[in-house]
Amino acid sequence: MIMEMVKGKLIAIGGNEDKGTEAEPNHEQKNNLNFFELQILSRIVQEMYLQKKSHIEVITTASSIPQEVGENYLQAFHKLGCDNVGTLQIRTREDARNPEYLERIRSCHGVMITGGNQLRLSTVFGGTDFLKIMHERLEKEDFLIAGTSAGAMAMSNTMIYQGSSAGALIKGEVKITTGLAFIKNVIIDSHFDKRGRFGRLAQAVASNPSCIGIGLGEDTGVLITENNNLEAIGSGLVVIVDGHGIHHSNIADLAEGSPISIENLIVHVMTRGNAYNVKMRKFIADMELVKK
Amino acid sequence: MIMEMVKGKLIAIGGNEDKGTEAEPNHEQKNNLNFFELQILSRIVQEMYLQKKSHIEVITTASSIPQEVGENYLQAFHKLGCDNVGTLQIRTREDARNPEYLERIRSCHGVMITGGNQLRLSTVFGGTDFLKIMHERLEKEDFLIAGTSAGAMAMSNTMIYQGSSAGALIKGEVKITTGLAFIKNVIIDSHFDKRGRFGRLAQAVASNPSCIGIGLGEDTGVLITENNNLEAIGSGLVVIVDGHGIHHSNIADLAEGSPISIENLIVHVMTRGNAYNVKMRKFIADMELVKK
Repeated sequence: MIMEMVKGKLIAIGGNEDKGTEAEPNHEQKNNLNFFELQILSRIVQEMYLQKKSHIEVITTASSIPQEVGENYLQAFHKLGCDNVGTLQIRTREDARNPEYLERIRSCHGVMITGGNQLRLSTVFGGTDFLKIMHERLEKEDFLIAGTSAGAMAMSNTMIYQGSSAGALIKGEVKITTGLAFIKNVIIDSHFDKRGRFGRLAQAVASNPSCIGIGLGEDTGVLITENNNLEAIGSGLVVIVDGHGIHHSNIADLAEGSPISIENLIVHVMTRGNAYNVKMRKFIADMELVKK
Repeated sequence: MIMEMVKGKLIAIGGNEDKGTEAEPNHEQKNNLNFFELQILSRIVQEMYLQKKSHIEVITTASSIPQEVGENYLQAFHKLGCDNVGTLQIRTREDARNPEYLERIRSCHGVMITGGNQLRLSTVFGGTDFLKIMHERLEKEDFLIAGTSAGAMAMSNTMIYQGSSAGALIKGEVKITTGLAFIKNVIIDSHFDKRGRFGRLAQAVASNPSCIGIGLGEDTGVLITENNNLEAIGSGLVVIVDGHGIHHSNIADLAEGSPISIENLIVHVMTRGNAYNVKMRKFIADMELVKK
């Protein structure tokens, strides 16, 4: 199981989800007929305990411009009719111990973790009571944790924190550390097709073959529930990389800096309505049929 | 069989093969310990009938700066000790009928097809006697056809000629036409990791599942011989995408512009020394063992 007996939900988003801040949808969104305004954020609200009436906290710790990013999310949630939204401006481990913030993370119905640098998330929150409360609530309550870009990548215990696209299949180029561990045995990558990150996720999976790789496109995400189903949501693509069937791989024997070879990765490309069961390692073409 | 009873060889290269024109290897090449100066071009020469003494013709038709590109290749081959090298400056179908060029393509031991726009290659050479001579010589003689970037992509009968990386898994974004058909049932893509082209090749393969996708990194290539073995050469990576096992795919039913879903692509990542047999659809970890 990737999550043991949890009652909560995770929504991991690949970045650049529409926040309704542009007067015109951009070129790519226009080209994509399945684009719906504010679709992903609206799905987040829909999955919350009290929907629009939920108390939502935005965690801006990953961002280098936390005020601006926080304000964007407040506006986006307000557009969707949510009036009980706050931002937790946590910059340091000291901030994470602030009793006011601990109270707010205990009382809200869900959080939105913004993008930025995922190492900020793991180093500020790792081992804190703040994180412990999130884990407990996810396990025992109808609590929703949503994260985008760095906020999505930090959700797993195995977290990519560095690695260029161009050198992604050179040994040592992709750096991995411990994330916030809301979910186990997966590796989440973001901005996936836009930034050409197949090689980076392939290296991460080949080095950690017990993990399923999840490549999230922009304005695209997965809803992860207790059944271990990842349901694709949003306007773009979710790429699943399964390394369980790898035959040959030269990673262990290589010097750092040498190109990696991998035999037999299984890859699925999902769009809205498809799902993937991480436990069974099974692609589900029509998620609606499973729900019925 | 991808090639029927051929005696010749193909070398397909992903672009930016080192031509020894830079004073310093660039950053990426420095980081890659397996980088060898002029390695791929040197392998091309080694595989030619008379090696350094071979008569080589450079075909610059794909390029928009044919004089400059031709000159670069002449210098690179000269550095490798080849003195019998010419350039065929063919711009039009009229040029392709020039008796002097027909004579030169009949008498040389091998050709190097440069990069540029692969549609120039297919539209200038398609159906010409010039192309027919190349096909006949490849079939019956120890004749070598090398091509880089557009020159590699045009080698197959199924040729990608357009498709952005960002929109690569949107139906209709990847455009395919007929190439020079030196090889069948494969789709070759170039600049593969550098330009993030996994999605583009995945769409091409999902739309043409009888074809094996071959994604060539820069300064990287495959040597293709009559045994249907693709041997990885050069400093980077060759990604193989096999769509024969695809279960679910929504491509046929989708409207143009919608995101594509694909279940069960098999992907291999090869580095120098690895090979792939297209007929058996089998990864070969150590090509040297096969040769013995």
